[in-house]
Amino acid sequence: MSATSSAPVFAGVVPPVATPLLDDGSIDHVSLARLVDRLVSEGVSGLFALGSTGETAYFTDDQRVELLRTIVSVNADRVPVIAGAIELTAPRIIETARRLIDAGAQAIVTTAPLYTLNSATEVADHFRTIAAAIDAPLWAYDVPVRVHSKLGIDLLVQLGTEGVIHGVKDSSGDDVSFRRLIAANDAAGRPLQLLTGHEVVVDAMALAGADGVVPGLANVEAVGYVRLWEAAKTGDWVTARTEQERINRLFDIVFQPKGLSGDATGVGAFKAAMHARGIIDHATMANTVQALDADAVSRIRAILDELHLLPVAVG
Amino acid sequence: MSATSSAPVFAGVVPPVATPLLDDGSIDHVSLARLVDRLVSEGVSGLFALGSTGETAYFTDDQRVELLRTIVSVNADRVPVIAGAIELTAPRIIETARRLIDAGAQAIVTTAPLYTLNSATEVADHFRTIAAAIDAPLWAYDVPVRVHSKLGIDLLVQLGTEGVIHGVKDSSGDDVSFRRLIAANDAAGRPLQLLTGHEVVVDAMALAGADGVVPGLANVEAVGYVRLWEAAKTGDWVTARTEQERINRLFDIVFQPKGLSGDATGVGAFKAAMHARGIIDHATMANTVQALDADAVSRIRAILDELHLLPVAVG
Amino acid sequence: MSATSSAPVFAGVVPPVATPLLDDGSIDHVSLARLVDRLVSEGVSGLFALGSTGETAYFTDDQRVELLRTIVSVNADRVPVIAGAIELTAPRIIETARRLIDAGAQAIVTTAPLYTLNSATEVADHFRTIAAAIDAPLWAYDVPVRVHSKLGIDLLVQLGTEGVIHGVKDSSGDDVSFRRLIAANDAAGRPLQLLTGHEVVVDAMALAGADGVVPGLANVEAVGYVRLWEAAKTGDWVTARTEQERINRLFDIVFQPKGLSGDATGVGAFKAAMHARGIIDHATMANTVQALDADAVSRIRAILDELHLLPVAVG
Amino acid sequence: MSATSSAPVFAGVVPPVATPLLDDGSIDHVSLARLVDRLVSEGVSGLFALGSTGETAYFTDDQRVELLRTIVSVNADRVPVIAGAIELTAPRIIETARRLIDAGAQAIVTTAPLYTLNSATEVADHFRTIAAAIDAPLWAYDVPVRVHSKLGIDLLVQLGTEGVIHGVKDSSGDDVSFRRLIAANDAAGRPLQLLTGHEVVVDAMALAGADGVVPGLANVEAVGYVRLWEAAKTGDWVTARTEQERINRLFDIVFQPKGLSGDATGVGAFKAAMHARGIIDHATMANTVQALDADAVSRIRAILDELHLLPVAVG
Repeated sequence: MSATSSAPVFAGVVPPVATPLLDDGSIDHVSLARLVDRLVSEGVSGLFALGSTGETAYFTDDQRVELLRTIVSVNADRVPVIAGAIELTAPRIIETARRLIDAGAQAIVTTAPLYTLNSATEVADHFRTIAAAIDAPLWAYDVPVRVHSKLGIDLLVQLGTEGVIHGVKDSSGDDVSFRRLIAANDAAGRPLQLLTGHEVVVDAMALAGADGVVPGLANVEAVGYVRLWEAAKTGDWVTARTEQERINRLFDIVFQPKGLSGDATGVGAFKAAMHARGIIDHATMANTVQALDADAVSRIRAILDELHLLPVAVG
Repeated sequence: MSATSSAPVFAGVVPPVATPLLDDGSIDHVSLARLVDRLVSEGVSGLFALGSTGETAYFTDDQRVELLRTIVSVNADRVPVIAGAIELTAPRIIETARRLIDAGAQAIVTTAPLYTLNSATEVADHFRTIAAAIDAPLWAYDVPVRVHSKLGIDLLVQLGTEGVIHGVKDSSGDDVSFRRLIAANDAAGRPLQLLTGHEVVVDAMALAGADGVVPGLANVEAVGYVRLWEAAKTGDWVTARTEQERINRLFDIVFQPKGLSGDATGVGAFKAAMHARGIIDHATMANTVQALDADAVSRIRAILDELHLLPVAVG
Repeated sequence: MSATSSAPVFAGVVPPVATPLLDDGSIDHVSLARLVDRLVSEGVSGLFALGSTGETAYFTDDQRVELLRTIVSVNADRVPVIAGAIELTAPRIIETARRLIDAGAQAIVTTAPLYTLNSATEVADHFRTIAAAIDAPLWAYDVPVRVHSKLGIDLLVQLGTEGVIHGVKDSSGDDVSFRRLIAANDAAGRPLQLLTGHEVVVDAMALAGADGVVPGLANVEAVGYVRLWEAAKTGDWVTARTEQERINRLFDIVFQPKGLSGDATGVGAFKAAMHARGIIDHATMANTVQALDADAVSRIRAILDELHLLPVAVG
Repeated sequence: MSATSSAPVFAGVVPPVATPLLDDGSIDHVSLARLVDRLVSEGVSGLFALGSTGETAYFTDDQRVELLRTIVSVNADRVPVIAGAIELTAPRIIETARRLIDAGAQAIVTTAPLYTLNSATEVADHFRTIAAAIDAPLWAYDVPVRVHSKLGIDLLVQLGTEGVIHGVKDSSGDDVSFRRLIAANDAAGRPLQLLTGHEVVVDAMALAGADGVVPGLANVEAVGYVRLWEAAKTGDWVTARTEQERINRLFDIVFQPKGLSGDATGVGAFKAAMHARGIIDHATMANTVQALDADAVSRIRAILDELHLLPVAVG
């Protein structure tokens, strides 16, 4: 699908939706519906389904479709939905993406190939092959900590100019490169929407020219990001920064688990906090990912309490 | 499936079968049949289907099944067949592995999770989950250049002792670690078969105690590896080394392509040489992988010619 | 030396001084004097002598002392001078640092050990050992691309709280970590001054709370950074961003050399531009570092010309 | 110095000499003399002074000279001595190397530049610059875990052919690359001596064509390596392997410390074992490197005991 005016716009606050699970590891559709409804009600401008925060790599395509159907259904066209098609290479990504588009995804986001050893030329052809085979706008996801290669600025702007990709989610942790991508995109007539995945520097990245943010932490509280983004849009940088600093104290929850894996720690902290706030019914992690211990959960609750984010007991 | 005396043995020369393709990128079953028959005829002791040399990451599961069926059919039970189930995580690997077992794979080999960020504990559970869900012996594939993490010695020996895995294909390029794995496996009563993936040091790794080798280069010529391995088994290390050194001159084909990706270079050189030798009808690479240029192919032919490995013209 | 109110303050724009060389590779003191005088005249608030931009690793301690003496002499106490003592480990750093302090350095900055394989505990002791042995405030320099390890937030704040280090130059390229360091430093009562080494995101890092910047590009033009920083200090973020964007166009000079090393490219572009602007008499690089080709120099001149930064011919 | 027939030959077992320290961290010349005499008496064919096992990075040049003088004096020309000049770049390495040559080093070994960001062309010029400035044969030391870059095969053979370097100590842990270096060196007429730094695969590397080994573990026991090498030279690979396997059980001492840095662990285990065997009087580590705990020392003693390597009490 080529870039047209009818393509859905992903800008502002576009949280990656977490995946609530029942104790047996199956999908908790009730909690997922509650989460999605809450995110949209808090004012987010789009939903990023089946991303890393959604533990998407741990689910089969049948489960991914099941998850996406609930997200799309509860959202009820209030905001646009983009879905991650995380797979090894173009032929496999196309299979997954087509199923997600059938299930209601309005755009697809994917990474460079996994497992393979490719050149930049081959990575460009990878995105071209996918874009040509699916009937939805394609976005590029730059997450070197997982993919182990970085998408270059020239590559991204070239693919944008060709209409192959419509935007980039940047989780590269490289602010110099992201700033240069913004400038190169501007110089090319802004073919790309540019979202940062780093939830603790949104004010700074907004000042630098980002179009939006994909904050995993918004699963715990989205309204702060909405306020931050509104302030930034109006040039009220002091308010934006103040909100960011409050949010960053909340982000300290991800540093409470000790000795666990990256996936157990980050998503685990989000789920523990969501559970403490009553947003989801269980903090169960995807299969094989270790659970937080009680001490970590307790420290996470203390941070929520300090920020007045624990639910008030009714009675 | 627990380790039992009925599990197929993979030892000696177990080449990873390359995937011949027609010019349009579809599977060239005629060339594949010729290749498999040649490998078995040259005396290999097993076949490793759907590995990295087989470009397996670039194929859908339907294509993988199609490939495996031809390999299994042509092999006709002459040697055991192990198949790679390369996917992101346990639930997805299990789906792929079951289809491959149905298609005739006698064992399954897979890696640590891809894309995710896991601890050693989680990686161990990953292998346990897969082994418990499939009806064939499981092997571990250690290839950090693609998976971006290394399987630890303690982890592997523990999983072997539990009967979770039956063997390891080591493509880590870390000879110190491999030597220590051999010693640790010996100390544990040899629960694991240990194969090296490094085709240029087979004599040395045989001396060190490896049980076999998975040489991609055997797609070009397998008989040299068979001779090398026979010599090593009888303690004739001078002959083993001499054969290795001849093979290593052949391996120089992979250094002839310039400026291409890792996948284009290595498998590309194998395919160019196989094509020059008449083993496959086309040197076509998997979709998005770049082709070698004529100069590289010419240099590869020159090496084959020097080693008397080009076919004699009939007339 | 413990942190006291008499310690020199390094904040705002603190450029790393480049090292002009004669054609034979010896130090060009005339150009160096011109450069230092220009930097101070343009309004910088401190000088960072003998850093990476100054090619310090390529010089002997005798040469380093010689360089520093000219910098200190020309500066004539107008702004404070901090000097890099880049060496392998504490005992060697102390030797170098003492010579630099004797030559006029008012503070010393150094990295974690080089070449060795140390734990965080050992790195902390490394800084403690150095601080105890020298008679000047110590700063930590975090530059993982050169040191191949990252200084942790807890480590830095702990060393700040102990009075071991007075500040950090962060060239880690990790904006998430830098933002968290700012917050942790605030929470600890601000024992550290925090400077970013990334010249293209100064507006954003100022918004985030950085105390200053160490911009290599200021060797080419410092006045833009001074304007940027003044605007940021007064909360005029739009002006700060506009100036940053103009500066970032200038930074494109570092992407003009092709196929050279990191050191040849970055410092080489700075020196070529400084030479084109008449700030230094030769663009000679340190011994063994390759020179730019004429095409790269020409492209660099074109960028300077576009930004009206070339000198007007007199006549 | 160009390669001539008068250059000292380093082949066979060339241990890197550890640095015994008194409790106050100063050099323990008595223990050092005992160690050197023991190594030479056990039959080693050369001494590698001031390498990583010697903790050379932690010492000033004055200390390095002091250490080397004792080694040279005790050795008394029985075997050739090569010394590491580990510093940042050519100008600094030359200063150190000249002092070491004056103190009796018969050859110098160094790495690619540290801290800097160089191309292969620049690294080649680095070695050329050093070789031209010193009056002793130069060797290259390839240790990516410390230098964070790998010396390429083409580079090394080119420098060998030019007479710039006389040999290579390979601690790259990349057996495929080392095997290819051996072949490339053979094809070029063997300008280089090739030593492996990996003490647990000496039998295999000898079979592959290595000229010798630099085993840190020989500080604990050298005679096993001497026996191993003698067996390999006579083609008795079964004896070589048997000796290697005994040695590798001894090498398990380096896996007994838990949670310490790389330097604390490896050299720490060697020193603890040397101390237990009575070879050195104190197990003191270089400044800032953490000491082993009593449990680790106890486990190390148990391994020595099992292998009958503890001294017999006299009474």
